[in-house]
Amino acid sequence: MINKLLLLFIAISFMACQEKQTTSVKESSAQLLLTSTGMELFQNPKSDLVENAISQLEIQVKEILENPLKVPQPIDAGGGYSHEKHKKNYAELYRVAISHNLNPADDKLAFIKEMFESYASMYPNLGLHPKAKENHPPGKLYWQGLNEAVTLFYMIQSYDLSREFLSEQEQGKIEKDLLRPMAHFLSVDSYDVFNKIHNHGTWSVAAVGMTGMVLGDDEMVQTSIYGSNKDGKTGFIAQLDHLFSSDGFYSEGPYYHRYAILPFIAFAEAIEKNNPEVKIFEHRDGILKKAVTTLLQLTDEQGRFYPINDAIKSKTWESDEVVFATNIAYKQYKDESLLPVIKMMGKISLTDAGAMAANAITEDTKDFYNRPSMFIADGVEGNSGGLALLRSPQNTDGQLQAVLKFSTQGMGHGHFDRLSLSVYDHGHEIIPDYGAARFLNIEAKRGGRYLPENKTYAQHTISHAAVVLDEKSQYKGNVKYSEEYVSQLVKTDVAGERLQVTIAMDTMAYSNTSLSRSITMVNEPAISDRPFIIDLYHIDSKTGHQMDMNFPFYGDIIDTQFEYTRPVNKTVLGTDNGYNHLEVLAKGSPNANSENTKFTFLQAQRFYTITSITDSNTELFITQTGANDPEFNLNIQRQYLLRQPKGDSTHTFVNIIEPHGFFNPIQETVAQPKSVISDVKHEQQNGCDIVTFKAGEDLYLYTLSRKRDNQKNHTITYNGNSYSWEGPHQLIKL
Amino acid sequence: MINKLLLLFIAISFMACQEKQTTSVKESSAQLLLTSTGMELFQNPKSDLVENAISQLEIQVKEILENPLKVPQPIDAGGGYSHEKHKKNYAELYRVAISHNLNPADDKLAFIKEMFESYASMYPNLGLHPKAKENHPPGKLYWQGLNEAVTLFYMIQSYDLSREFLSEQEQGKIEKDLLRPMAHFLSVDSYDVFNKIHNHGTWSVAAVGMTGMVLGDDEMVQTSIYGSNKDGKTGFIAQLDHLFSSDGFYSEGPYYHRYAILPFIAFAEAIEKNNPEVKIFEHRDGILKKAVTTLLQLTDEQGRFYPINDAIKSKTWESDEVVFATNIAYKQYKDESLLPVIKMMGKISLTDAGAMAANAITEDTKDFYNRPSMFIADGVEGNSGGLALLRSPQNTDGQLQAVLKFSTQGMGHGHFDRLSLSVYDHGHEIIPDYGAARFLNIEAKRGGRYLPENKTYAQHTISHAAVVLDEKSQYKGNVKYSEEYVSQLVKTDVAGERLQVTIAMDTMAYSNTSLSRSITMVNEPAISDRPFIIDLYHIDSKTGHQMDMNFPFYGDIIDTQFEYTRPVNKTVLGTDNGYNHLEVLAKGSPNANSENTKFTFLQAQRFYTITSITDSNTELFITQTGANDPEFNLNIQRQYLLRQPKGDSTHTFVNIIEPHGFFNPIQETVAQPKSVISDVKHEQQNGCDIVTFKAGEDLYLYTLSRKRDNQKNHTITYNGNSYSWEGPHQLIKL
Repeated sequence: MINKLLLLFIAISFMACQEKQTTSVKESSAQLLLTSTGMELFQNPKSDLVENAISQLEIQVKEILENPLKVPQPIDAGGGYSHEKHKKNYAELYRVAISHNLNPADDKLAFIKEMFESYASMYPNLGLHPKAKENHPPGKLYWQGLNEAVTLFYMIQSYDLSREFLSEQEQGKIEKDLLRPMAHFLSVDSYDVFNKIHNHGTWSVAAVGMTGMVLGDDEMVQTSIYGSNKDGKTGFIAQLDHLFSSDGFYSEGPYYHRYAILPFIAFAEAIEKNNPEVKIFEHRDGILKKAVTTLLQLTDEQGRFYPINDAIKSKTWESDEVVFATNIAYKQYKDESLLPVIKMMGKISLTDAGAMAANAITEDTKDFYNRPSMFIADGVEGNSGGLALLRSPQNTDGQLQAVLKFSTQGMGHGHFDRLSLSVYDHGHEIIPDYGAARFLNIEAKRGGRYLPENKTYAQHTISHAAVVLDEKSQYKGNVKYSEEYVSQLVKTDVAGERLQVTIAMDTMAYSNTSLSRSITMVNEPAISDRPFIIDLYHIDSKTGHQMDMNFPFYGDIIDTQFEYTRPVNKTVLGTDNGYNHLEVLAKGSPNANSENTKFTFLQAQRFYTITSITDSNTELFITQTGANDPEFNLNIQRQYLLRQPKGDSTHTFVNIIEPHGFFNPIQETVAQPKSVISDVKHEQQNGCDIVTFKAGEDLYLYTLSRKRDNQKNHTITYNGNSYSWEGPHQLIKL
Repeated sequence: MINKLLLLFIAISFMACQEKQTTSVKESSAQLLLTSTGMELFQNPKSDLVENAISQLEIQVKEILENPLKVPQPIDAGGGYSHEKHKKNYAELYRVAISHNLNPADDKLAFIKEMFESYASMYPNLGLHPKAKENHPPGKLYWQGLNEAVTLFYMIQSYDLSREFLSEQEQGKIEKDLLRPMAHFLSVDSYDVFNKIHNHGTWSVAAVGMTGMVLGDDEMVQTSIYGSNKDGKTGFIAQLDHLFSSDGFYSEGPYYHRYAILPFIAFAEAIEKNNPEVKIFEHRDGILKKAVTTLLQLTDEQGRFYPINDAIKSKTWESDEVVFATNIAYKQYKDESLLPVIKMMGKISLTDAGAMAANAITEDTKDFYNRPSMFIADGVEGNSGGLALLRSPQNTDGQLQAVLKFSTQGMGHGHFDRLSLSVYDHGHEIIPDYGAARFLNIEAKRGGRYLPENKTYAQHTISHAAVVLDEKSQYKGNVKYSEEYVSQLVKTDVAGERLQVTIAMDTMAYSNTSLSRSITMVNEPAISDRPFIIDLYHIDSKTGHQMDMNFPFYGDIIDTQFEYTRPVNKTVLGTDNGYNHLEVLAKGSPNANSENTKFTFLQAQRFYTITSITDSNTELFITQTGANDPEFNLNIQRQYLLRQPKGDSTHTFVNIIEPHGFFNPIQETVAQPKSVISDVKHEQQNGCDIVTFKAGEDLYLYTLSRKRDNQKNHTITYNGNSYSWEGPHQLIKL
């Protein structure tokens, strides 16, 4: 609150120091995301968010105007000076253009003119960027064309807001030497990208399409919306149709979804204003609404996106793209569930939608976002696998979240991790997805691009909580091959509070092999005051395999109820498919007198135990990333791995993942440091799993049908007694 | 705010549901920390803190009373059930006793009676605890006597608050069978601990002394204050005189300081009330005030204590002991600088002092604690080395903090780390002190006690940012030997904003060898918008040595401007003295054509570069903990180590530790990822260091006199020119 007031005070003082502008602002001609509608809302703020947005903008603009404007020759790769400077320039131009519109001043206008003039003078003389890479679409200002599209995306918005303050001659030069050449480069010289069903294409069509709207060039607009051939096979509509699943899932994953959502939503908003006949927000049953809400749902309790596929982990829903998207989605769909998110973001976009969303927030808007369990289907028709989000009731203890991933490959940024699991608890990663091997924008790390270890480790199956057969990644580690096949949803029932389940299967990841995994979240206070997860993984093959069940984990190893040795010599887990990056820290085997093996770790002051059914053949490993990593590119990550080495053709891995207790180092108290679950046993009967376990002295029976039938009633026999249940599963105390 | 209101609402609702107590509370006879003075303040709250304290108390007490009371037989070691349960019991008894005083209720009183009755029935029959260890003072309820003293400390306070509600018969039994036997066990059976100059002794005398006050046994009081022989050679006064340095530094370090401060301050408060003639708060020039403020100053920006010596890292000033201490110190000394801390803690102790401190906080009390640079002397006379805290101006970028440690050994919990450095920036550990190898209270980790690796790694010199000669720890790794000698302060000048320096030396850590280290913090915007550190470490010996300069670091390795190889086979850095726990991840040597070597890492979104003067002999290592760690007891920690291997007898390690730039993964921006400092050169002239370096294109000259003279003027010659300065040092642009 103090910060807010301080900002406001600085901004007001600053504005007071300016010479009073007596120009009465005429109705703005701007026609993209911020028009006279939004300007009026910003000029007469009725909400803290709007006031803050303006005061922060004025502070930023003041700082921008204090520094000399520089437009360097394009020389450096990602993260290098010229790369970062051009990115900074368009962002600054955009801010100053908005600020000048809301609160005109000579120095702002001078900055805008100088910026446009400098780029317009330089651009016609540029060839392809010297750091352009083969096999990667190049730019002129940047090593890659993508940044060029993003630049035009912001420049055309800035121009839209500034044109009325420029002379005809100035307008002419900017349009002729900068905007049109950029649009031409993006749509004609970079024809392939422009017509690609890919987020790079979306940036291109959005930038070029908005340029067409502002310059009154309908050809540009039409090719952007319907593709270069205007046949609808490429272009924006085709991208909308093919890049999102029926549930609004973006197959590359939330990290790229977050990035792609901005050109989608912004261009849609511009189309709605300038070409309302397209009815873009109604297209495909409101796919843009689903795209936004699905993205928001793909977050942990800290608002961080699940790092599925190639993903930089620190991204949250506070990213500017998501702020834009959420604002516009609210404006178009009036979905009240978006308002708490906008409130928690604590910031808005400087658009008509931003001001309207801010004004819609009331004192009753909660600081709470509902993250229920759900199944999100992948595939344009919704039948290409998907993502199951099993999430416990949200309470003060935080939420347990299990993500079962069996979506499509996700193109070049996809990982070979069908049926993989990740687990979050009270906003912390417990069983993590590694994400990408990349230091974004850090030039010393290969120019900020993906590191070699992304392909050699992060994308492989073994970097995930997944099963690996014979030390080979799924789908032979081949993107094209993997894209040909989808995994299937067997059944999902996530509506209940006490029991939620999703079962997925895959028959093509390994030849002649059927894989199926069922993840059950149990929320049964009689067993534990914390929800826990029953993880059943069936492998059913025609031939024998080495089978590895891998659990990456974060935290300190607290207790291992098995004997192990730590290799004296350096031992790497394998030679390829990511195994080559894992050093063996310990190798062990289950205790001879027990059918269960326990592994307990402590993360973020809570304990987690994995209780596994093991046998005398099982081998146990604790591994750590870092082998064959010459440049220290890999994050330190430990894994607990259970191996069935004997070449069986079928096996079921049964694991119970149990959060329990807590450790409070400030109060020096420890509660329930030991798992309450023991004596886990498993058998199968006619497509049903039967799991029994003890919680304290009580015996529980969990039964699950994994048949793909619609049959509601199932019966099994256990210990001579018959047990029946309706629906997919049942948990009872015996 | 919502939480606060919610708590208050629950508490009020709860109180409303109780049958209205019509008993008019008579003037309480309580005479320790919470008396009728404080009770009245709590019953008529004038501050949010007081209201919250009561409402939280009532919520806790409600929960306590819902569960059955259990007093188990003492069986388990630290972290085990009976251990934790007894700890929980006294904490609950204490809360219920306070609550009953403020808001009497039958169920509270019944709980109090049953608790006392159960312990009084059990205690006389107890022998020593079955898990007691040889060479460690035992308890009866616990494996160690320390917990027994803490228990009496809380039980006597609870009894003080409850006595007037108990029948004479009940009082008789509790006093005869519980309180007196416990006091007897602590002061007679455990005579050695009671008379020890050690925090365990302080807990004993505080518990026994307060018991004497409440039971009217002046003999107990006098022996507690002046020792069993009442000669002042042991007991509380002697502890106050010998355990704190003249600056209020506690030689075991802040972690134990935090723990010890509670019996010190609480017993002092009881003495002031019951034996005001002692004038305890005036004793030794107000040493108790210094003890509290020095403790508060030994924190990073998150209020976490510097983890000097054996320390669990997560401890903050929000620990209950510090809350107590800060409240009482405010009450006694009316030091206004404590109020912001109490406000930021957001909670108070349920004592007279707590209520008075809360009421003293006003709207003008800031959320800001001033952490200036300072030198904190160790030793009763203040001449036994100490701790230099160099800290940059506090601004929105956060504070850079350098801690140069050259205090006394700190008894059995001390580390062999004289002249070691640790660095914090904006509340994050950058160059860390490892702290202790221990999982406090986690039974699976050796009963929660110190782990073997605490002695074999954490206490050794190599686990610190320090110099190690010949792979041997300082002072032969011998506590007794180390306690005989002190390091010396050469000079300290930390008052300036632009330049701060402290120089320390040690002549006994290695035989026939003088070590000296000067740490300079430079805050010069012309060089960098971020402060940085010049670290000069001189070794001057009569014989040749292998010299290792070690820098533990947190973060990702971003850039190493030297060639290295990563060993294919497992390579451990050495065979003993902690070297045996370090695996060599990389070994390298400086680039042939450069006199400087750079190492850059990224931590908490900021870059840090260590620029070192190296030569063709220098060997460079990157190491990681984990070797010879059979139980996974060590935290993962990486080190950058510079070695001079050739057996020189003198050497100066010159390192510039430079924070620069930032990485914002949400905005996808990177600023200044490269160090601006280059061409570092060093020479010596007549006890002066001359360091030159370039910042961008500018050449800077830093001169420092490390003579132990009082001479103010110094002159050196550089490049044929003469340069003079006043005071210890000068930094100029050439």
